[in-house]
Parts: sequence; structure tokens; C-alpha cells
Amino acid sequence: MTDCQDGEGAKTPMELYKRLNEQGEKVRSLKTANAEKADIDAAVQMLLKLKTDYKQVTGQDYKAGCPPSENMVVLDNGPATDGADEDDTVDPWNVSTTSAKGVDYDKLIVRFGSSKIEKELVDRIEKVSGQKPHRFLRRGIFFSHRDMHQVLDAYEKGKSFYLYTGRGPSSEAMHVGHLIPFIFTKWLQDVFDIPLVIQLTDDEKYLWKDLTLEECRRFAVENARDIIACGFDINKTFIFSDLDYMGASPEFYRNVVKIQKHVTFNQVKGIFGFTDSDCIGKISFPAIQAAPSFSNSFPQIFGSRKDVQCLIPCAIDQDPYFRMTRDVAPRIGYPKPALLHSTFFPALQGAQTKMSASDMNSSIFLTDTPKQIKNKINKHAFSGGKDTVEEHRKYGGNPDVDVSFMYLTFFLEDDEQLEKIKQDYTSGALLTGELKKILIETLQPMISQHQEKRKQVTDEIVRQFMTPRPLNFNL
Amino acid sequence: MTDCQDGEGAKTPMELYKRLNEQGEKVRSLKTANAEKADIDAAVQMLLKLKTDYKQVTGQDYKAGCPPSENMVVLDNGPATDGADEDDTVDPWNVSTTSAKGVDYDKLIVRFGSSKIEKELVDRIEKVSGQKPHRFLRRGIFFSHRDMHQVLDAYEKGKSFYLYTGRGPSSEAMHVGHLIPFIFTKWLQDVFDIPLVIQLTDDEKYLWKDLTLEECRRFAVENARDIIACGFDINKTFIFSDLDYMGASPEFYRNVVKIQKHVTFNQVKGIFGFTDSDCIGKISFPAIQAAPSFSNSFPQIFGSRKDVQCLIPCAIDQDPYFRMTRDVAPRIGYPKPALLHSTFFPALQGAQTKMSASDMNSSIFLTDTPKQIKNKINKHAFSGGKDTVEEHRKYGGNPDVDVSFMYLTFFLEDDEQLEKIKQDYTSGALLTGELKKILIETLQPMISQHQEKRKQVTDEIVRQFMTPRPLNFNL
Repeated sequence: MTDCQDGEGAKTPMELYKRLNEQGEKVRSLKTANAEKADIDAAVQMLLKLKTDYKQVTGQDYKAGCPPSENMVVLDNGPATDGADEDDTVDPWNVSTTSAKGVDYDKLIVRFGSSKIEKELVDRIEKVSGQKPHRFLRRGIFFSHRDMHQVLDAYEKGKSFYLYTGRGPSSEAMHVGHLIPFIFTKWLQDVFDIPLVIQLTDDEKYLWKDLTLEECRRFAVENARDIIACGFDINKTFIFSDLDYMGASPEFYRNVVKIQKHVTFNQVKGIFGFTDSDCIGKISFPAIQAAPSFSNSFPQIFGSRKDVQCLIPCAIDQDPYFRMTRDVAPRIGYPKPALLHSTFFPALQGAQTKMSASDMNSSIFLTDTPKQIKNKINKHAFSGGKDTVEEHRKYGGNPDVDVSFMYLTFFLEDDEQLEKIKQDYTSGALLTGELKKILIETLQPMISQHQEKRKQVTDEIVRQFMTPRPLNFNL
Repeated sequence: MTDCQDGEGAKTPMELYKRLNEQGEKVRSLKTANAEKADIDAAVQMLLKLKTDYKQVTGQDYKAGCPPSENMVVLDNGPATDGADEDDTVDPWNVSTTSAKGVDYDKLIVRFGSSKIEKELVDRIEKVSGQKPHRFLRRGIFFSHRDMHQVLDAYEKGKSFYLYTGRGPSSEAMHVGHLIPFIFTKWLQDVFDIPLVIQLTDDEKYLWKDLTLEECRRFAVENARDIIACGFDINKTFIFSDLDYMGASPEFYRNVVKIQKHVTFNQVKGIFGFTDSDCIGKISFPAIQAAPSFSNSFPQIFGSRKDVQCLIPCAIDQDPYFRMTRDVAPRIGYPKPALLHSTFFPALQGAQTKMSASDMNSSIFLTDTPKQIKNKINKHAFSGGKDTVEEHRKYGGNPDVDVSFMYLTFFLEDDEQLEKIKQDYTSGALLTGELKKILIETLQPMISQHQEKRKQVTDEIVRQFMTPRPLNFNL
């Protein structure tokens, strides 16, 4: 009875779950067998203790018959200075951490079984592409990968690849964090000169949210405008809404059905944590996010070729979809997609949570005015500075938890300037207000330019990007 | 311990399943509590007895955690004369009975909650259509319905409807039994002058069978030829393969997703008996068979109208799909489809089983030569006659279990001739060989004519039937 006390005994959600099942059965046995009251009471106390532990580790109530998702990533960040437990949860619908520094990405790599993007890989991308690596690579914002070396090996031998990324259009409003995969994907498209497909999962949003099909479809088109404004090459980019493209491409549906035949409910239950109460649309959806990983889903682009390598830049929370895809691929005769994973973009309020598109104060939105940007940053951006100017000058600020500084790592291009800001902030030479001012002056022109570019994206341009058609490229 | 003996206690699969769960737990409790060996043995004996009962009632092994499908229809036909239990099982993948007379359809109506097609309804169809009722109606081959009176009420007030039926193309070979819904649907189309959609579920066959997508797609087209040969009006009929039409109609996919959002895994588990080991394609497929029940799945035919009433003629084993559809319909703002259910066409070997497209001797196939028809009927058709001519003359034959007579009820148009055959066979005046000869002479020209008509179905005609296009009708 001591094996679950303070750091001993079962630790992972699944271990705890199994212990709970055993203990539950023990209690039932004792009761059925009319055992001594003291024995039953002791067993019940142990059961309650285990339930408390389970809730603490998983954030969810224990429920017999509902094992924790294998994909529920619970990280033990070691003893926290404030004494609280620090647990990171990362799946396509939940990203949370109790650490102000954000999720522990090194542990996530181990847990997900992906590979760290080491300096060697960044150097290699530079060598192969002949371009200075994007700041997201230089600064570890894209930090994890699967099979990127193989992609480069093949590319060096003249065998090219295509890019696939996407977005779930849950509202018209996109914030700067939503641009991260698109900014990076545009850079990859430019330096490797390759085709790109962008999936807008309006069907997924319909299935998960309290929205109509028409709303989801409209959000997809509005989001496409913002995506196009990132500067993608219209001759090399196909953007599609699932609700449209499924009904426009028998080849896409055929790949969806192939994937659906090779994935069981047990598997999606394990990967995504689905339950028997989930609708059948959610249960089968992962196949729809998987299908664009295979080139013959796009016959208008690749003809009947099913061997064109796919590279997927995405935030790491999308990895479960592609772990499933990579598991299925060889069984249906297709190459596994390669991946490049990014960290999460922090909310203005701090890196503990992923931003929410429904809370306009949680980030800088692409529709914000210069004044709104200024006010939001000044009012909401979590500061790593000290409480008074005097203390700040004396002890310095903490850039590791300062959201303004984090945002600058995403958007300030100049490495030297960024390093100097970090040093000055750490030393106390730079005050929080001054740091915020630099961020405001970085984001205001960036957002204004985005809004200008978006205005130029006419209905006709959107229609062209979203029309299934041949693209211009050499593979 | 006596409540499960001989006719007492638990009877339905679900009751037995619950008893088994309880008994299993009891055995575990006793073992865990180190109870007396005699007590444990007694509990284990009871468990084994319950498992045997379960297997007998459901035809399947008891498995903890896998409750029986609510849709598993197990009928108690009362004490059988030979002392054996008579159980009917009916779902989209299993139809079986131990009675030579076939499934007890009156009990199926009660179990499924549909309505019997009474003489009053047949008379009404005659009155409304102005045509003599089809022999399938006169003879109770279409025996059950849902909402057919409402369809006729609306039709009398000038509000028309459309027909939807289908087929799972599991092979090129179709037998005469496969034609039953199509023969009847053609009659309905003719007498009511209404449009018809025919779904070929090639995606379903890919998911359930060990076939490639290409094979399933090819079977769909080959089956379409046989269906077209039944004489459907090309101006009023749209035939579609799911693999093609899903990728050709965003509206169809939208309805599929709508349905998928409103049906949980728990529900399809209950209706179809799916388990956690089933692939996610099977789990979500019922939505694809449901979607053609809603008129706006066919914008090329009905425009954006979602209120056109659908009537589905089908064999009763397909009813689970449409019970689900009727449950979902009002929740997504669509009218419930009405249904007309047929009995099963018996195998040559007897009415105990539905025919198999993979056993060429189990029925008369549409490709059979006159000689094959003759040989199969003479060799395989189960006879209700007596062992010797003398006995037969003396005691008479039993048309209720005689497959040749059953086939004649399906295909011999003349009611008086059929009644005379029945009387003569029952009295012994007609010998089995003579009865078989009448059937042979009925089927030979019918099949030859079918083959002639099929030859005239060119690739171009198939293409036309299978092209999404406007149809010619007044609603």
C-alpha cells in the first residue's frame, strides 16, 4: 500500500489506469466475499488515492473501461520551484503546460519518437537549398523532424518532393501564431522550388464544433485569403476545402477509403483518445487528414504517380495524425510522409497555453489595427521583468518567460539585434516597456503589410488557388 | 441456479449477455476470495451453461466487453417438430434460419418495428397507381413497410416522391435473387412515373471484402449492366458507384458528413454489431448508404430541394441502415425515407440460407445457359416431394418447403396457374420432376431474354445512366 506514495510506484497514465482496474476488482471481490470491514475500507481508501493520482497525472477522471489515450502526453518536468506539478499535455485538441517557459520539447521528441533538428540538419538544409536557413530553423522554432535526411538525400540525387500543410478553419479570425507554418512553408517552397498543397479541414471543424457546414466552408475561404496573402506562388500552390475537394476528386476519396480500411477503431482510440460516444465522423476523420500525404490524391498535379515524396511542415500537436499516416503508408503501397515540427506559439498571457482563436485578447490578430496591437501588447503581454524599474535595473528581466521577447524570436529577422535585446533585457538595461515597444514596432508594419496584401487577394485569385489544376514544377 | 434451465429465465441475447457478465464476475470474486472449491466449481459450471445458451441463441461465442448487437434478430419460432431450436438471424451481413420454410417474417416485423403490408395497402397502391399490383405485392414477397400510407397520402395530393435502391457489387456474377428489388423498383417507377437513384456500394465491398478498389469499381459497372437490362427508363434513372459519385458531388459528401456528425460509435455498435477491432471505414460507412435517402444529395436531379420524399424498396436485411437514417433525418432537417421490404430469395438448396454470389450452384445466375438452368434445378433444387412416386401420389408434396415452387411464386406471373400448381403438388397430382420442368421452362426464356437485353447495354448506355445529370419528371 505504499507503492504509490510520493514518487514511488506507478507513474504513467496507463500504469495508473491498470492499477486502478486491479484495485477496483479487489474492492468488488472483498465486498462480494463479505470480507472484514477493515479490509474493505483499506482497499477503498487505496482506490480513492489512486483515483486522485490519476486525476493529477492525466487531468481527467478515471473511468472504468476508458483507458487513457496513448497519445496523451504527460511529462514530468521535475520538481517545480513553486512546488506545483508541471505536466505537459499535447494532442490535436489539447495543448497545455504549467510551465511559463512552455512545453518541454526535448521530452516531447522522446515521447513522440521523432528526431531533434540538430545544427547538422540545419547546415545541411542550407547546403542543399543554397539559402540561409529561415529564422524558424536557426532559432529552433521548427525543432523536430521525421525522415528529413532522407528527403534531402533524394533531393540531392535529383528526386524532388512536395509540401503539404493545412489549417482547421474554426473562425474567420486568424492570429499571428496561425501564420507560423505558412511563413515557413512559403520559405520551403521558394528555396526548394516545389509544389504545395494546403488542406482546409472545414469538415473537421463541422464535426468538432457547433458550426454549420456553410459557416465552416465560409471560414475556409476567408482563411484561404490570409494564407494566400503570405505570398505563395499561384503556379505551384493548390489550396482546397475538404467539403469541396472530396466532392471533386474520386482519387482523393479512394485514398481516404484505402486508409480507412487499414485503421481500426482500437488504433484511433489509442492515438486520439476517441471514445464510444464520439460520432462516427470524428472517428473516421483522421483518414481525411492523412490522404493528402499521398501524391495520387492530386491527379491534376501528379497524374497517377503515387511515389512522390511528401514533406509536412506543421505544429507538433498534429503529429498524431501523421504517425498514423506513416503506419498505414507502407501497407497500402505508398511512401511515408516526412515531417518538420514546430513549437507552439505562446498566448500573450503566457506560454502555459496555446492561443485561442475565440479569445481576441489572447494574441495579435491579423485584423488588428496598429492601436489594438499596441494596446494588447502593453496590456496583456506577460512580462518577465521585475515589478519596479529599480528592481529591474538591479536584477534584470527573464526573457525565457517574457512573451514579448518570445514573439520577437518568431518575427524579428535580425539575429544580432535579437541577441542584443536578450542581453539587455537580462541585464536590466532594457525595460519591459522598451521591449514591448520593439515588439509593437515589429508587428505593426508586419500586420499592416499583411492587411495590404490580403486586400489584393480578389475572389478570382482565391478561386484560382482553390481550383484543382496542373501546377508548374519539375520533379 | 435454475432460472436459466429449459425455457425459464433469460432469453434475449442481451439478457444472457448480462447474466454472463454477472456470473463471470461472481467466479472471479470467489476465486479471489479463496472460496470453497465446491462453490467455485458450481459457479464455473453455471458460467459454462450460460455460454452454451448464449452460443445457441446468438450463433456467436460470448466475449466479455462485446455485447450482442441490438440488431441481431433472434427469433424463437416455438417448438420445432424435429425438436431442434429454430432461430432466425437477420442483419446486413448475416441472414440465417433453421426453418425450411425460411425466416418467420411476421416475427421480424414485430422485432424491427415495421408495419405489415396488409391487403388494404395493396388495394390502395392499386387504386392510387391505377395498375394491377405487382405479383410481389399480391403474393407478400414485399411484405413489410414504413410510412407507405403517408407516401400515398402525399401522392394523392399531388406531392410526388423518388425511389432509391442499391446493390453491393461483390462480384461480376448476379443471380436471379439479386433482381428482386430491381424488378419491383422498375414496376414502381413505371406505375408512379417517378425518378430513381441506384447506389452501387463499391466502397462498402472494398471495406468488407478482400478485393481491390479497382475490382470493386469494375464489379459496379458490370452489375450496372444487369440492372439496366431490367428495363429502367434512362430519362428517369441515375445509377452511381460510390467511389465515383463521392468524388463528383460535394453535396453528397456534405450529407454524408452531416449524418456522420449525428451518429455515434455506440449507435452503430448497437445497430450493426461493430466492434473496436473493426476498421474506421466500416464504422463510418452507414452514413454513405444513408445519404441517398435525402434528395439534396442529387442536386443535378433535385436542385437544392431537400424535401422530396424518398421511398426505398429493399430486402429486409437492409432495414438497419434505414432505421438509423430515419433516426437521423429529423435531427438534420430532412424527411424520413419510407420503405418497402422484401423477403429473402431462397437458395436452391433450401430456404434456410440466403444465397451466396460465390457459390454458383446456390442459385440460377444471370449468365447461366438453358442447359445449366435445367441441370441446376434438377440436381440442386430442394424438393418438398416424397421419396417415391407412389408415396408422392398418395400423400402429396409440400410446396411450403419446395424451392422450385418458391421460385415460381417469384417468377410465374399467372396467379391461377400458380394456385393450380400448388393444389396439384399438394394433392400429389403433380410430381417433383414436373414441377421442376415448369420452373425450368419459366426461367430459361426469362434468363435468355435478360442476356439479350444485357447485350444491348453498350458502354455508352452505361456511361449515360452513370453520369450525374438532370432527370425527366414532374414532382
